[in-house]
This record gives sequence, C-alpha cells and structure tokens, in this order.
Amino acid sequence: MLNITLPGTGGTMPLKNRWLSSCILSLNGHSILIDCGEGTQIALKNTGHKFKSVDAICITHFHADHILGLPGFLLTMSNEGRTEPVTIFGPEGIEYVVKRLCVVAPYLTFDINFEEIKSFDSFYKKQLIITPFRTKHSIPCIGYSFEVNRVGKFNVQKAKQNNVPLSVWSVLQKQKSVTFDGKLYTSDMVLEGPRRGIKFTYCTDSRPTESIRNAAQGSDLFVCEGMYGDDGKILQAKEKGHMLFSEAARLAKDAGVDKLLLTHYSPSLEYPEKEIESAKSIFENTECGYDGKSIDLNFKD
Amino acid sequence: MLNITLPGTGGTMPLKNRWLSSCILSLNGHSILIDCGEGTQIALKNTGHKFKSVDAICITHFHADHILGLPGFLLTMSNEGRTEPVTIFGPEGIEYVVKRLCVVAPYLTFDINFEEIKSFDSFYKKQLIITPFRTKHSIPCIGYSFEVNRVGKFNVQKAKQNNVPLSVWSVLQKQKSVTFDGKLYTSDMVLEGPRRGIKFTYCTDSRPTESIRNAAQGSDLFVCEGMYGDDGKILQAKEKGHMLFSEAARLAKDAGVDKLLLTHYSPSLEYPEKEIESAKSIFENTECGYDGKSIDLNFKD
Repeated sequence: MLNITLPGTGGTMPLKNRWLSSCILSLNGHSILIDCGEGTQIALKNTGHKFKSVDAICITHFHADHILGLPGFLLTMSNEGRTEPVTIFGPEGIEYVVKRLCVVAPYLTFDINFEEIKSFDSFYKKQLIITPFRTKHSIPCIGYSFEVNRVGKFNVQKAKQNNVPLSVWSVLQKQKSVTFDGKLYTSDMVLEGPRRGIKFTYCTDSRPTESIRNAAQGSDLFVCEGMYGDDGKILQAKEKGHMLFSEAARLAKDAGVDKLLLTHYSPSLEYPEKEIESAKSIFENTECGYDGKSIDLNFKD
Repeated sequence: MLNITLPGTGGTMPLKNRWLSSCILSLNGHSILIDCGEGTQIALKNTGHKFKSVDAICITHFHADHILGLPGFLLTMSNEGRTEPVTIFGPEGIEYVVKRLCVVAPYLTFDINFEEIKSFDSFYKKQLIITPFRTKHSIPCIGYSFEVNRVGKFNVQKAKQNNVPLSVWSVLQKQKSVTFDGKLYTSDMVLEGPRRGIKFTYCTDSRPTESIRNAAQGSDLFVCEGMYGDDGKILQAKEKGHMLFSEAARLAKDAGVDKLLLTHYSPSLEYPEKEIESAKSIFENTECGYDGKSIDLNFKD
C-alpha cells in the first residue's frame, strides 16, 4: 500500500490556515517528501508522519514556496538524532541552492546525497521507480511520477512443469533467482507475467504540457496544481506559469488517470471547493486537496 | 506610545502551537521587527500588524530559528507591493548570510540596506535610539536596546525671561532651534531639562552577562530569553548558551527594570507558566510571554 498525504496545499506564501504545497509518499515504512516550503516541518508533524522515515526529498524547483523550509526541516531531523543519509533530488543546481540556504544550518548529524535531475530517466529509490519529467514554469521545474511494480501471480502448475523444488517457491516470489542443489531457478519459472502496479504522479508548478500528460498516463492518482478555479483568470495563469482547475482536469482526462487531486491554490482562493465544478465538468473524479488529505493506493484486484 | 508585540516565543524549531521568537516595536506608524525565523510572516499576520509598516529588521544572530523566515518575509513584502527600502541590521556578515538565503528570492520590489553592527554605538532609526550590545551564545549574537527620548516640559516663565516671541514657542517644542526676525532661538530657552523617556531591551540568545545587565539598566520592559524554567537544567543551559528563567530574573533585578517578559522557550517546555515561580521569587514583576502578547509603553507622569 502506497500512502499519499498532502501536508500543505497552498501556493506563493504560507497562510495561517493553509500550509505551502508539499506531498509525502509512504511505502513499507519509508517516505519520500516532495517540496519543502516555509513551515512544511510543522505541516508534516500535523499529519502524524515521522521525520525519521523520510529517506529522500524531491524538490520541484527553486522558488521559495517550494524549498525555503528545507534547512529547518533538515535541522529538525538532526535534532531528532538522524544519522542515516538523506537523498535530495532536484533540478540542476540543487546542491548549490541547498548549500546556500544551509548557511544557517551548517551542522547536520547526517550526510546529504544530492542527485541532480538531468536525464529524466527513471531510477529506483526504496522499491519505487521514480520518473521525473519537465514542466513549464517561469524557472526550470520538475514533476515526478512514482510506480510500485507488482510481480505476476504464482502459478503452481508452471512451477511443477519447470520442476522447481517446493522449498524455493516462496523465495522466487520475492527475488529474481535462487540457486538450489547446484541448479539455478528463476522467478519466471513460477510466476505469471507482471500485474498492474500502482502509479502516482505529482505536478506543480506548471502550465499544461504534453510532458505532463505523458507522465501522468494511467496514474491511479494525479496530484496537480490548480492555482485558480475561475476560468476568467487564464491570463494570470499564463503570465505566472500556473494552471486553472479546468486545465488540470483536461490533463487528467487526456492522461486517463483514475483520480485527480488539486493542490497549490492561490492565496486569494479562499474556498477551492466552491470552484471545483469547472474541473468536475471535464473530469468527474476530481477532488480538492486540503492540508492533511491522505489517500491509500492499493494494488487492484 | 511604543507598542511591543511578540509574534512568537519559541526556540529551536517552530511548533504548531508556538511560533519562533520574534518581536515587533511600533511607534507612530513605523515598525521594527527583531528576528525572523521560519513562519514569522504568519505569526506577524496573526498579531494584526501590517508588513508595510516594517522599515527595519534587527537580526540577533545567524541561527536558523532567528533568520530562516527572512526570504519569505521579504517576498511577502514584495507581493504587497512595497517600494520603500528596508534596513536590515545584524552581526558582521549579515549581508553575506541574507544574500545566500535569498538565493530563492532573487527579485524583490524594494532595496535592502544592510547595516553591520560593528561598533556597538547607539544610532537613530525612526525616532528610536537603538543601542546594540553583545550577548554570549555559541555564535556571535547581539541584543538591542531601544529608547524614545522625551523633551523637557515647556516653561512659560523661562520663555518670557529669554524674550522668546510667542509665535515660535510651539516650534521650539518640536525642534532644537529656529530663526525668527533674524535672531536664533533654541529649545533650551523654553524647555526644562529632558524627562525620562521609554526604554525597551530585547535579549536572546545568551548566557547571562554584564553587557546585558548594563544594556537593560532602567528599562521599562526587558524581554529576555528563558529557555528552561527548571533550575536543574543549568548544565544544558550552559552547554547551549541559553538561560534559565531564574537567570533572566536575576538580570532583570540587577538592571532595575520595571518588567520582565520571558520568551524563547525550549520546545520541551510545554507550559512555561507552570515554572514561572523560579523567576518571580527573584524578580516579582515577571511574566511569561506568549505568541501575540502585546504591551504598550507610555511616558510616565
């Protein structure tokens, strides 16, 4: 089960009733945080998540509302006695930016591994396949897709036909191969073809793009920015490199996702729920995210 | 009237029910903010203060809990359309540190004037005489005293004795001299000696020192850090360069201040009020500061 929680759902500046946008994914006791604006450490505590489970932080871009909370977040991890390294993914220059911000947090109890997103190839992190993609904002910005693979069903008949000894059946459900009595057995000797896993896509900040539509293709959940609900704000959205609710809904529909959750609201948008119809009329399974919103994604069937 | 408000009163990390320590002084529509940790912009909004009145920001030192909120604070000032410059005072290196933090806030709508505190001489800012003083923390740290001067009473007899024309009497209550009918008149020709003004002293982070005692001498209000209430935590206080409630109270007593307000509590100190007796037994007029606490200081008599 992959849990997705939104500690905050605001854009531009933290408000007293809305934290800045971030997202935390949890799988088997490990977590990945996406973005860390001012106050994200408090927002995360409010969700009940533990700092010590955060192994990696994915930064979308270098605007203050997405990264300024990082030094405080890292210091709080230090205060909690963390010693395991933390990986920080982000656009080119991530190390330069974080090191500058950490001028006021020079001593941490753990190492940071910086991983610049350059090639946009997929990579593994703690059982997740992460695929970054470009978005279109006023500065270089990255969205992230996360996939949990699911192996095929165990097929007793196939195992028997391939003369796989009973004692290695359970091993081959978890790993690709095993040697027993001097003979190599592989998982494809006992398993059917891989089944549909879980896919989650997170995108902010951006105008709608083909890269987002492609990345979100077939996601179980698509968390996407919706800076403005009112379609009349299209010029502001274009000028600032953001999306309308309806534009996020169009992407969700075209990408064939199961569910769309909106986030990153303008501070001027006090009640996002009131404007959700502009999205639902295009993509019915749209919900307005809110601080603390949590969704469990499970394997289907 | 000088208003003193504490937007936050916490140390080390922002908590969901306690913002990081900061202070805002307001006099005649102008404000000076002291310190700006993560979340101070929200804490300030909660107090009802306006960003646009903030002309200067005094930073005590470069620990994250005192300065990390600055880029977000400046960006919000920009979002509100500020064009007047802002002065930032702080320890040596203030410009270097703020410019590094502002890697994520490169464009502001106003200029910043940086003023490094080197000489510890008094200086004027918006009708306030500011006197910085050294404190004793793990890194260089500065406290600030603020004074509002008060001119002497108008003395009609003195004015007549000095043959000061009636038409310049009111002018000489406001300015030091005036030339009328080709003759120079000075305020000491109509005023008695200066009266007691208002003095306010702010100190965090520090161990108790003579420099603090001297700086706070005769203050109407002394806001001082009290990291721990329990005297048993003296070793922790010494190790981390902080004070016990009782140490702050001893300073208040020795400096002959009117009132002591404690701030900058350890995150472990959930109910500071419960431990106030250790301070009150030494200096009776002690109060525990809390987020939003506001005090008006007026001229006496």
